[in-house]
Amino acid sequence: MESMIRVNLGSLSYNIAIGAGHLDRLGELITPLKLGKKILLVSNPEIFNYYGERTRISLEQAGFDVAICTLPAGEEYKTPETLQMIYDAALKYRLERSSTMVALGGGIIGDMTGFAAATWLRGINVVQVPTSLLAMVDASIGGKTGVNHPQGKNLIGAFHQPKLVLIDPDVLQTLPEREFRAGIAEVIKYGVIWDQELFVKLEQSQGLDNIQALDSGLLQEILTRSCQSKADVVSQDEKESGLRAILNYGHTIGHAVESLTGYTVVIHGEAVGIGMVAASQIAVKLGLWDEDSDRRQFAIIEKAGLPTQLPPGLNINDILDSLQTDKKVKAGKVRFVLPTRIGEAIVTDQVTSDIIRQVLESSPVRCLA
Amino acid sequence: MESMIRVNLGSLSYNIAIGAGHLDRLGELITPLKLGKKILLVSNPEIFNYYGERTRISLEQAGFDVAICTLPAGEEYKTPETLQMIYDAALKYRLERSSTMVALGGGIIGDMTGFAAATWLRGINVVQVPTSLLAMVDASIGGKTGVNHPQGKNLIGAFHQPKLVLIDPDVLQTLPEREFRAGIAEVIKYGVIWDQELFVKLEQSQGLDNIQALDSGLLQEILTRSCQSKADVVSQDEKESGLRAILNYGHTIGHAVESLTGYTVVIHGEAVGIGMVAASQIAVKLGLWDEDSDRRQFAIIEKAGLPTQLPPGLNINDILDSLQTDKKVKAGKVRFVLPTRIGEAIVTDQVTSDIIRQVLESSPVRCLA
Ligand SMILES: NC(=O)c1ccc[n+]([C@@H]2O[C@H](COP(=O)([O-])OP(=O)(O)OC[C@H]3O[C@@H](n4cnc5c(N)ncnc54)[C@H](O)[C@@H]3O)[C@@H](O)[C@H]2O)c1
Ligand SMILES: NC(=O)c1ccc[n+]([C@@H]2O[C@H](COP(=O)([O-])OP(=O)(O)OC[C@H]3O[C@@H](n4cnc5c(N)ncnc54)[C@H](O)[C@@H]3O)[C@@H](O)[C@H]2O)c1
Ligand SMILES: [Zn+2]
Ligand SMILES: [Zn+2]
Repeated sequence: MESMIRVNLGSLSYNIAIGAGHLDRLGELITPLKLGKKILLVSNPEIFNYYGERTRISLEQAGFDVAICTLPAGEEYKTPETLQMIYDAALKYRLERSSTMVALGGGIIGDMTGFAAATWLRGINVVQVPTSLLAMVDASIGGKTGVNHPQGKNLIGAFHQPKLVLIDPDVLQTLPEREFRAGIAEVIKYGVIWDQELFVKLEQSQGLDNIQALDSGLLQEILTRSCQSKADVVSQDEKESGLRAILNYGHTIGHAVESLTGYTVVIHGEAVGIGMVAASQIAVKLGLWDEDSDRRQFAIIEKAGLPTQLPPGLNINDILDSLQTDKKVKAGKVRFVLPTRIGEAIVTDQVTSDIIRQVLESSPVRCLA
Repeated sequence: MESMIRVNLGSLSYNIAIGAGHLDRLGELITPLKLGKKILLVSNPEIFNYYGERTRISLEQAGFDVAICTLPAGEEYKTPETLQMIYDAALKYRLERSSTMVALGGGIIGDMTGFAAATWLRGINVVQVPTSLLAMVDASIGGKTGVNHPQGKNLIGAFHQPKLVLIDPDVLQTLPEREFRAGIAEVIKYGVIWDQELFVKLEQSQGLDNIQALDSGLLQEILTRSCQSKADVVSQDEKESGLRAILNYGHTIGHAVESLTGYTVVIHGEAVGIGMVAASQIAVKLGLWDEDSDRRQFAIIEKAGLPTQLPPGLNINDILDSLQTDKKVKAGKVRFVLPTRIGEAIVTDQVTSDIIRQVLESSPVRCLA
């Protein structure tokens, strides 16, 4: 089973190739792209340990010269300083304008490698080989790259589209379970805002909380539909001027929850799950979508083993304050993405603090602990 | 006297506004661009001391909120670390996606501010207000931005077009004389490779070596023709895939001379002057252009008070080695820009080491000291 999705961005268009075992075909699949001979393979030690040699061999057998750069793992290393390690390697191996960086890893490796490629010699090629579910269905597609500023995530960055995204579902077998479930939250998001059939598939499937129990054909389909959703949206709005905002479904309250709990108690995908539960309730209150759809979404999120309630001890006033300082605020108004029916969503700034408060104070989101 | 030049780059097009006293009109001139209210004005202490307050007042009178960020002066501070100072200021003043950075300074301030703007929130507006002659006719136009890696100039960078380039020739009055002459080297370059009329103007004019002696009408015309030349070339080749290479006239040997002498003995424009003398001789030897044109170019370079000979002690073998490691080498062949007639140049990789050596060993370039 394999699929190929096209991200249409004029001269910046590229493919997403999805298929079990694709890792060993990386060299073969990038050969038609006429990239230069030199490749810098960027990863972290753990992921490199699992998949680095296979990747390297695949590239070398296709005739590429491969150099390796591994970066320390963890969001705390997604910084301008770590970036220097990539630049140093780029210099050491004398990368040229035609050379390519290959990002083998989760969203952190993908974002940093993408940004390094965007800025080395004013832009060289990058190929994304996402290994986490979140990176597969979200971070690797669309060209957003960057690093963190000590005081804010992804503040330093650039748009830089990859030449290819290569997804091998098999590598998810080693992904920590919690990371897998977090990725499923983004998959559910696409079902709600963009792809009704995906939503229905998720309703019918078992194993959303555990990759070992998930049928491989279903996984392939989930990945394909998710990537297609993101590709559709990105193709219509490369630089995030309009439509792309709907990808922030669940992220408004999600970000507040993440940041208030220090990004570790609740990880990103989990926060998005909670955010979707809340946004869905807000949409019901505003009469934008019906209770039945709300219940169906809730059931999927629960089945995926994602939290649906705010973490204990979180103060609702702090959440409301945090919303006000979020990047997505325009002229003082908080922008929410709200579903209208399964597979469709709108962006609105008509959500009052009162409504947000009401929703956060009532079940299902409210934590009773 | 004022002129307005359009840099045509589709949706990224912008104007270059040139006129004495324009500094006080900055606010007025950017108002139609519909930029956000917040501006971060970036400069260095010396330049800010001369022109900072006028710039700030002009912006504030047009209704903008202005914050200031000054960076230490000097190429040794054109680094990722200094960039952090701009990012910190951007965070402190809460710049938004619609906000603007204004670069008030020479090429160093322009390149760093441009790169910070390219990468803050994945790209915000930048307006270039070049204050050195080199920045006016070269660095501020075309969207190349970046900082240095400890082991190489401008290795970290991005293409990021400004929203406006504002040039006030009056500010050149305070520019150190040597910097002025260095800028004239780039002006001469445009005369040779692109604009025959500019070349003839330069032949006829007095004061190329001293701004006090230069007629202000002539200065306006020189600036306008130079900016028009760069704008023409950049419009036809935004990302340096072809034509733009001709802007490197004089820069092949120039870069070798600069880097071998540590960037201080011979400054960039001076090295370009020497490089043009050498390239012109090479072109004569290859029968590409005639001795008369060569002599005419030499006379202008000399009149501008620019060095025409290699600095004493420079080893010709070192220059030849240095050419081999230059960024402009493609597949082992050194690329030269050579004039074919006044106002026209070609790019070629047909220049052998032997010819380069012959030229460097003979007058006029050879240093007899
Ligand atoms: N560019 C975008 O559009 C975009 C979108 C969403 C998120 N992001 C960014 O992505 C990052 C989060 O990505 P993430 O969730 O992938 O985190 P991550 O990169 O930290 O990966 C999660 C963890 O799983 C490990 N891992 C990844 N793949 C593995 C595998 N196959 N086997 C074993 N372990 C594996 C990693 O080493 C890491 O410890 C954040 O920095 C976020 O800002 C970017
Ligand atoms: N982006 C591009 O396309 C491009 C093209 C050429 C050069 N550059 C870059 O530009 C830089 C060189 O630029 P530069 O020659 O302007 O050097 P610079 O920025 O260092 O300025 C030269 C000196 O003159 C001072 N100065 C500038 N304007 C002044 C004024 N009006 N009055 C008094 N002092 C003034 C500066 O403080 C500095 O000391 C290099 O880093 C080079 O890489 C970029
Ligand atoms: Zn997300
Ligand atoms: Zn130059």
